[in-house]
Amino acid sequence: MNGLILFAHGSRDAAWAAPFEAVAARLRRQRPQWCVSLAYLELMQPDLAAAAASLVQAGCTRVDIVPMFLGTGGHVRRDLPALAQQLRDRHRSVDWMLHAPIGEHPDVIEAMALAALDGTP
Amino acid sequence: MNGLILFAHGSRDAAWAAPFEAVAARLRRQRPQWCVSLAYLELMQPDLAAAAASLVQAGCTRVDIVPMFLGTGGHVRRDLPALAQQLRDRHRSVDWMLHAPIGEHPDVIEAMALAALDGTP
Repeated sequence: MNGLILFAHGSRDAAWAAPFEAVAARLRRQRPQWCVSLAYLELMQPDLAAAAASLVQAGCTRVDIVPMFLGTGGHVRRDLPALAQQLRDRHRSVDWMLHAPIGEHPDVIEAMALAALDGTP
Repeated sequence: MNGLILFAHGSRDAAWAAPFEAVAARLRRQRPQWCVSLAYLELMQPDLAAAAASLVQAGCTRVDIVPMFLGTGGHVRRDLPALAQQLRDRHRSVDWMLHAPIGEHPDVIEAMALAALDGTP
């Protein structure tokens, strides 16, 4: 079984999660047979280890981790690879596939450029 | 003249700016007669006040401010409105139009959902 984790920063503000939940809902419709989970670096639950453990327990043998960050800062360059290595050490029978940050994807950049003009003259 | 500011968080990592610079480059192609600027909350330059002052000096009478944040956390809910109010107080002849965070735009959510599946089986 395939799993996919949307890994976001987290916030004290509950509204922060709304776009990530919207993306997860779309993914569940597009891949109804997959396990799709959210996970957060801090301030929100579950964290990456807990989300990953749930997917392993559900029987996932490959899990794609998609960083829901706009670019490569310290969290994507250092924190996330370290967390992913912990998953590889702890769950050796699972393939953990770490993606580039979502904001660096050319189609997302294009969509952001169009969206930025929404409501402008 | 119209101005547009892409307002992002900032990072100690220079690579952080790459997607925002890519969005700005697209906007400059789509609106060659506009002044398009980046601005950062912290750790990168220029800050919002400096970027805004440059656009006012260039003759902009309306400036759209687009939060390059994925969702509504404390920076978008509190920090940015306070900064925008300072701009309104300081530059009263300019219309400052504050947008919703880019990650909440339906087309960006859709693009992120598609991009998350890139490279998956």
